[in-house]
Amino acid sequence: MRISSFIFGDPLKTENLEFEKLTKFKALAIFSADVLSSVTYATEEILLALGAIAAYSFSLSIAGIIVGLLIVISISYWQTISAYSTEGDAFTVAHQNLGEFLGLISASALLIDYVLTVAVSLSAGIHVIVSAFPYLSNYNVSLCLIALLFITISNLRGSKELAAVLSRPTYCFIGIIFLMILCGFFMETPYLEIPMIPYNTSNALVFVITLRAFASGCCALTGIESIASGVASFKYPQYKNAQITLAAMVVILSILFLGITFLANKYAIIPNNEEAVISQIARYVFGAGFMYYCVQIICATILLTAASASFSGFPGLAYTLAKRKYIPTRFANLGDRLAFSNGIIVLSIMAMLIIIMFKGDSHALIPLYSLGVFISYTLSQAGMVKYWAVNRGENWPIKVAVNAIGAILTFLTLLIIMESKFLNGAWIVAILVPILFCLFKKINRRYEATNVELDLKRGRLGNLIQPLKNTKPKVVIPISRIHKGTLSALRFAASLSEDVTAVVINVDEREVNRLKLTWKAMNFSMPLAILKSPYRSLVNPFLDFLHEQDERESERGKTIVVMPSFVPGKFWQNILHNQTATILKTALLYKKRKSEQTRIIVEIPYQMKIQE
Amino acid sequence: MRISSFIFGDPLKTENLEFEKLTKFKALAIFSADVLSSVTYATEEILLALGAIAAYSFSLSIAGIIVGLLIVISISYWQTISAYSTEGDAFTVAHQNLGEFLGLISASALLIDYVLTVAVSLSAGIHVIVSAFPYLSNYNVSLCLIALLFITISNLRGSKELAAVLSRPTYCFIGIIFLMILCGFFMETPYLEIPMIPYNTSNALVFVITLRAFASGCCALTGIESIASGVASFKYPQYKNAQITLAAMVVILSILFLGITFLANKYAIIPNNEEAVISQIARYVFGAGFMYYCVQIICATILLTAASASFSGFPGLAYTLAKRKYIPTRFANLGDRLAFSNGIIVLSIMAMLIIIMFKGDSHALIPLYSLGVFISYTLSQAGMVKYWAVNRGENWPIKVAVNAIGAILTFLTLLIIMESKFLNGAWIVAILVPILFCLFKKINRRYEATNVELDLKRGRLGNLIQPLKNTKPKVVIPISRIHKGTLSALRFAASLSEDVTAVVINVDEREVNRLKLTWKAMNFSMPLAILKSPYRSLVNPFLDFLHEQDERESERGKTIVVMPSFVPGKFWQNILHNQTATILKTALLYKKRKSEQTRIIVEIPYQMKIQE
Repeated sequence: MRISSFIFGDPLKTENLEFEKLTKFKALAIFSADVLSSVTYATEEILLALGAIAAYSFSLSIAGIIVGLLIVISISYWQTISAYSTEGDAFTVAHQNLGEFLGLISASALLIDYVLTVAVSLSAGIHVIVSAFPYLSNYNVSLCLIALLFITISNLRGSKELAAVLSRPTYCFIGIIFLMILCGFFMETPYLEIPMIPYNTSNALVFVITLRAFASGCCALTGIESIASGVASFKYPQYKNAQITLAAMVVILSILFLGITFLANKYAIIPNNEEAVISQIARYVFGAGFMYYCVQIICATILLTAASASFSGFPGLAYTLAKRKYIPTRFANLGDRLAFSNGIIVLSIMAMLIIIMFKGDSHALIPLYSLGVFISYTLSQAGMVKYWAVNRGENWPIKVAVNAIGAILTFLTLLIIMESKFLNGAWIVAILVPILFCLFKKINRRYEATNVELDLKRGRLGNLIQPLKNTKPKVVIPISRIHKGTLSALRFAASLSEDVTAVVINVDEREVNRLKLTWKAMNFSMPLAILKSPYRSLVNPFLDFLHEQDERESERGKTIVVMPSFVPGKFWQNILHNQTATILKTALLYKKRKSEQTRIIVEIPYQMKIQE
Repeated sequence: MRISSFIFGDPLKTENLEFEKLTKFKALAIFSADVLSSVTYATEEILLALGAIAAYSFSLSIAGIIVGLLIVISISYWQTISAYSTEGDAFTVAHQNLGEFLGLISASALLIDYVLTVAVSLSAGIHVIVSAFPYLSNYNVSLCLIALLFITISNLRGSKELAAVLSRPTYCFIGIIFLMILCGFFMETPYLEIPMIPYNTSNALVFVITLRAFASGCCALTGIESIASGVASFKYPQYKNAQITLAAMVVILSILFLGITFLANKYAIIPNNEEAVISQIARYVFGAGFMYYCVQIICATILLTAASASFSGFPGLAYTLAKRKYIPTRFANLGDRLAFSNGIIVLSIMAMLIIIMFKGDSHALIPLYSLGVFISYTLSQAGMVKYWAVNRGENWPIKVAVNAIGAILTFLTLLIIMESKFLNGAWIVAILVPILFCLFKKINRRYEATNVELDLKRGRLGNLIQPLKNTKPKVVIPISRIHKGTLSALRFAASLSEDVTAVVINVDEREVNRLKLTWKAMNFSMPLAILKSPYRSLVNPFLDFLHEQDERESERGKTIVVMPSFVPGKFWQNILHNQTATILKTALLYKKRKSEQTRIIVEIPYQMKIQE
């Protein structure tokens, strides 16, 4: 207990669960970490894709197009915010407007996306660190996992302390990158030869590569919707503040993204495996001194912050899904520290597996990343189109048009990403989304079936729980040896009914004979039945005996089983004992059963002294 | 069930448990597989050790010394057989004559030894196969694990069918190796230059290397005691037959071991990583044709057979230890197929781990191997010395002398092995033996403490189980919602006592309010207690409530807990439900407990229909 308190903090009372409303300044810091952090790797992804034909000079135009798309998507979300002021996440919007099917598809895409955000951000963060300290390059995966562990624990401690710290890296990051862009912009540079597209490259190839670079760069657009899903946490007037914050975020993102891409062009930077592009730029601008290391460390910090953002997004969505019974309801339980511990732990394990599978290589992960994001963008925009068309309101045709344009553009982008990234890993997401969907549906159907079966017809049911005084139950008590533990069980059985049969299963002839002698010597009044067990099974002879008893006098109800059980001093000591009671109970509940039976099982645990 | 029947065979009746008595011919085949199989790698181990100073020519003399040691040990065991005609294994002999401490030490050594026999035999077997089919060399570990799986399953099917098959490879092996030695002996060979010891090698180094080679070669002596531990399975006159079989085994082993070492010298064979020595010899003698592959396959088969032998030895020893309560008693349970399944499974898992850890490299494993064997040899011989000194009988001074010489020689060998192999891995065994010893002692003490606590004072106890009619028990029933399942629990609680309190733990304010309304609407007569849970724990408020109840009117006995529980259609569906009943029950049994309390827990499981 004390160790867990030290690591995770003391438990918090439920009444402490009140959300501090965020100012625009704080909200920008918290919600934009995810989006802004992507500028540390988006330019690099574009350059990597263009590398196939050395068309590095295209990068700035592609970044421009992506910024255009960013603006369109943001305007669409601007509208979403005004309509859904509490929870504007893609799942809610799609579920309410487009129905369960598309809602769950977007939920699947979002869940996958949260996991990938953690994996990509951590991998990219460690890549930046390794660029600055190359001798760490062999510990890539281990460093990712250590960072993951750190983030998981701090999120399990609860989000409040975290939020206080989170605003710092974002503004540091904005500041230092802005400074870098300014310095780089005005710095004189020696003439650098930019590699040229080979002379004989076909136009078709150029086109394909450009599309691919665009698809790669779209990872800069992930996380825009975080503000829309968090409107509830803004200060009043909530939706106005959220919209202003969104606008600020878009402006900052555009400047940073275009600026970095511009500098990459200016310094003719070519991506390589050893050093991240952002690190190369910083080295050109600031030289390999103090400022350079500042940039690297701040970049790594904002990437960790971005990973941490998923740790509130994923459990939040899981909570919503659990409340609607699409995933096990335990995801809706608040933990000791008022954080949804189950969601946090599942997210952490998934991210860990992915980091290990992809060996912490962010380049390998990014193709998987954007697909899910654009599925949920498209569905969210399409949902908004439906929303305006149904609910109308002021200027609704314009609003329909804006969201429709958003939906069409994000859908086109989705197709481009599908085309250019499918074989590079996006197929994994394309397979996972329907699998998750089926799982959600199956779980939901189970819960509904359960509810239907358990439900009581309404009305005054008080008379249903009259005591069962008239029927005299039959009681069976399985024993194997007579000791203090069995004795108290026999005593309780005798007080339950006058028709008690002790039962022993004959697995070892000698022990049964010994028991018979003791039974006689002790002069017990109840009969002792000895069950044959030619195959040494404890379970089957006992179940058969019970069924036979039940059938013989069915009007007296199910035979009650009184089970003497044995509880050792410490939990691990269970390994020393044969767990007969547990085995019999599990078999009673799950084996050879007919549906809807209720057999009363009385457990009389004998608790051993705690020794050693 | 049908799948398990197909793989493991149908269950067998206990009455089929009768051991067929073995003829000398069959017994030799079964008991000597382990010993004889070691000639496939013992010569190689000697040559490898000698390789350090290229003193390959010493190998034949070293083999001669080992054969001398073999004869001494066998004569000692000859005497053991006449004294212990049912179970002459090292544990029994040491335990009875030298006391618990040395008995358990030898049991630890033996258990480790069985695990290593499996790992070494499989690795060596696969090494032989890979020598013949070099393109399999990358699948080394996988092949070992497949073979292990095969052996495990066939042993879980029971030993009878197995024994019938086992006699064949042994005689094939003896035949083909004998033939190979004969052919090799009479074959003309071109002059081969045997590498010479470098001129400037110091005598001290030569001495050390020779000792080391001797220690390595001692792996040929593992498994001699198998006949002594299996005397009970011989035909009458048991001990005579066992002695004759032992003598035959020693003669055959000596011939094969010396013959192979002679051929290795004749062909100037130098061990290498790619091809086993036995494979090199076979290639020289028979050429790379049909006979060569026969030798390889038969060698691999006898090694598998040797591994399989441990699968009756280990569970047998585990049975003996479990009966004396040194390890969990479940190791004494016979499985479905009359094999000690628990022992077989544990052995298989341990062997698997070791094969994976050592990457299936028999050279790395052998240093660990001989140490345990010689610990048990030494203790067994020493035990026999004590036995003769105490029990006397005909010619007892001579018998004391023979076993004493055996004990001294095996002890000296043990010291040599310790000295030369300690750093190569024998230290692992040297650490494991005391750990196992402490474990055995600890488990034994727990069982004894349990027995003392549970034991009843003898006498007529019939009056102890009079029904508890006078006291009216308090009953508490935790609920969270009212549905069909809780209803039957409430009904049973009402029939148990008139003092029933339903309890709900306030984790979610809204749900509790809903429950209160339903409770009122349904007009239940019993009170509903609402427990505060500021930290959202289900366990602590409930336990506190119970303790308070218990203390208020302690003369009325412990409060009975009636627990409605929920059993889904299939076991995996438990993941969908919150397991509140299980959590509460586990907490009741293990948390905040005072010793020796017996709280009656009544479980009323509601079993869902089986759907889908």
